[in-house]
Amino acid sequence: MKTNRSLHSSINVGVLGLGTVGSAVVRNLARVPGIKVKMGCDLRKVETACVLTRDPMALINDPAIDVVVETIGGINPAKQLVLAALKAGKHVVTSNKQLVALHLEELMAAADKSGVSFLFEGAVGGGIPILNTLRDELSGNIIEEVYGIVNGTTNYILSEMTEKGEEFAAVLKEAQRLGYAEANPKADVEGYDASYKAAILAAVAFRAKVKWSDVYREGIEKITAEDIDYAYDAGYAIKLLAVARKVEGELDIRVHPALVPFSHPLANVSANNNAIYVRGVPVGELMFYGPGAGGDPTSSAVINDILTLGNDECRMTNDELRSYPIRKIDQIESRYYIRLQAPDKHGVLAGISRAFADHQVSIAGVTQLETRGNTATIVILVHKVKEANLTAALKKVGKLPVVKKIGNVIRII
Amino acid sequence: MKTNRSLHSSINVGVLGLGTVGSAVVRNLARVPGIKVKMGCDLRKVETACVLTRDPMALINDPAIDVVVETIGGINPAKQLVLAALKAGKHVVTSNKQLVALHLEELMAAADKSGVSFLFEGAVGGGIPILNTLRDELSGNIIEEVYGIVNGTTNYILSEMTEKGEEFAAVLKEAQRLGYAEANPKADVEGYDASYKAAILAAVAFRAKVKWSDVYREGIEKITAEDIDYAYDAGYAIKLLAVARKVEGELDIRVHPALVPFSHPLANVSANNNAIYVRGVPVGELMFYGPGAGGDPTSSAVINDILTLGNDECRMTNDELRSYPIRKIDQIESRYYIRLQAPDKHGVLAGISRAFADHQVSIAGVTQLETRGNTATIVILVHKVKEANLTAALKKVGKLPVVKKIGNVIRII
Repeated sequence: MKTNRSLHSSINVGVLGLGTVGSAVVRNLARVPGIKVKMGCDLRKVETACVLTRDPMALINDPAIDVVVETIGGINPAKQLVLAALKAGKHVVTSNKQLVALHLEELMAAADKSGVSFLFEGAVGGGIPILNTLRDELSGNIIEEVYGIVNGTTNYILSEMTEKGEEFAAVLKEAQRLGYAEANPKADVEGYDASYKAAILAAVAFRAKVKWSDVYREGIEKITAEDIDYAYDAGYAIKLLAVARKVEGELDIRVHPALVPFSHPLANVSANNNAIYVRGVPVGELMFYGPGAGGDPTSSAVINDILTLGNDECRMTNDELRSYPIRKIDQIESRYYIRLQAPDKHGVLAGISRAFADHQVSIAGVTQLETRGNTATIVILVHKVKEANLTAALKKVGKLPVVKKIGNVIRII
Repeated sequence: MKTNRSLHSSINVGVLGLGTVGSAVVRNLARVPGIKVKMGCDLRKVETACVLTRDPMALINDPAIDVVVETIGGINPAKQLVLAALKAGKHVVTSNKQLVALHLEELMAAADKSGVSFLFEGAVGGGIPILNTLRDELSGNIIEEVYGIVNGTTNYILSEMTEKGEEFAAVLKEAQRLGYAEANPKADVEGYDASYKAAILAAVAFRAKVKWSDVYREGIEKITAEDIDYAYDAGYAIKLLAVARKVEGELDIRVHPALVPFSHPLANVSANNNAIYVRGVPVGELMFYGPGAGGDPTSSAVINDILTLGNDECRMTNDELRSYPIRKIDQIESRYYIRLQAPDKHGVLAGISRAFADHQVSIAGVTQLETRGNTATIVILVHKVKEANLTAALKKVGKLPVVKKIGNVIRII
């Protein structure tokens, strides 16, 4: 099994989990010239023409199987089965972002020990070949930053809020009705899904050992129709971004809503697509755009990993990965959007300006668009500043008698 | 020299041609950990710290050199030198789109004969790793279509025409003054540069033997400010596209201006960037976006090819390439924009409609915006139709006494 060419004629694939992705893998593998799917294993339902078993361990231990594809999702039983497969000397290909984000080091160690590959292109960006491109096609570059839109549900909700002017809760409810959001939407709207992908992007882009718990995470629950309006008027879309940067030897990995200028290609990414920016030296800025989820696109990623097996260049090993200090969120530098409510009287801006100046927060623009009753909404955009400074300044602002409430603070890219 | 890892510590690179790209290759190779540039050869000027020679054959025949990088450009002397290097058993990496488009088969045969690699990622899309991604990262897909913006000069000129409302000749003159267009602009504005890239994209995407002379080519010289205006009002940008499609077993490869809907990500590609769409099964539509030219971005592509050498999976060989019939331009199907001038009197649209109907050309929209003297400009958008039918219909239209002149015909994507 030295090359993908020699594998092409003889590869036997076992698939654990025949849901949307697993079924598409089985279906589309059948189209690849010269490849044969000898067996699939269904943990949930029976719907394909391949040989089926309901015993995953029998499949894992079958000497005829070269590769185990894991598309069950989640940690249990996926993790135990993948570890068993690696221990049994099978290559493993997975699209399970949570499993990879939480246990990459342990799984790669098990793969290294058995001298097999553990590949996971399908875990980030659906059909976009982002991980393998970072690993194989930009190898002369120093990657400085990777960021983008990696969650379709939140992108859909934010797009709908923008188009319809409706609030988060109403749009979420409609998205659930249409099947674009899960009954339990937490993994998407609170940014968990994106945080798994941010961790994986950082691991591959920087060849880094990443602890998922080090990823800073904010969801889109607190974004209001008002925020979207003000941002729109100032020339920005609001998008949930996954960000992975290497700054002065530290990793800065985070997921949060961000204001994205309309002139930036990410601002126009439609609901069903993902888009990932990569900034490297010497290449500059690249963007990779495509279907971020779904059976067929994700199966493209899984199948490419299968065809890559046996090519030793096309994998990472644990000993390539290094540990880096994590940059805490209060140490990042960013521009910010701040929405606050204040009684509509003189002295408000003076008080805010003083608090900002005390902490080196420099105001780039102020909008005071409307007054409801005695309360004015004031939106302030500030220049790049360390987040700790902004937090300290806003603490002071919050205590000003002229300020009623700090409505929202959103980072700007 | 089995793997890029083993090469990393010992690779000796000879560079032929130290212009913008060659110099950047030498400069940026020095940053790659563990790699050493032992020698560069300057055919034009001396500006680097590496060992220099003015005798390219001495460099090619130097037993210490593993890889020859060719960044001279053009056919002579590049072709002879590359063939000599391949014959001498050196891997060759080039960014020379004209050389690759015109002589890929001959050069790959020479590489195959010596058992070395001939790689050319830098020839298309500057820093965008489009060729290697098509070759290595989408291997489970059937690629159906590749199209995009691959020439910066024409993209700049069309963008400027749109923003300033000026005619082609004036914008070209200004672009030449600013250094964005060559003194002899033919290679860019007449679509030659894009046609080389279209041929290479087709060869890699479809593993096809492509004759560059089979690429249909139109430039942007005949696009008027009026066309851009009418297209804009109808919701389209005009872009020069390179298109490579596989349709019913035939290759359809062409370069021409096209109307691109504003909702399409290609419509918003800024002047300095390239963007390439790929449609495959099962992946769906992907877009790759980035700096399409320049020393640093292109050096990223060249350097990645150097680091890939010795990995047998990461190259194509001649025996993988197949010949396909070429679909003639009159056999393609497309939507079209037609601008024509007619005396402003009744009967014009009736005559046109009859001629169109006779050839199954179906009108999607008509605009008659302004009348100058006795002449009205009429813009017609038609539904998808075989180009031969449109041509026959327009021949009839041109002979109508009520029609003064057919101003322009532009395909719509």
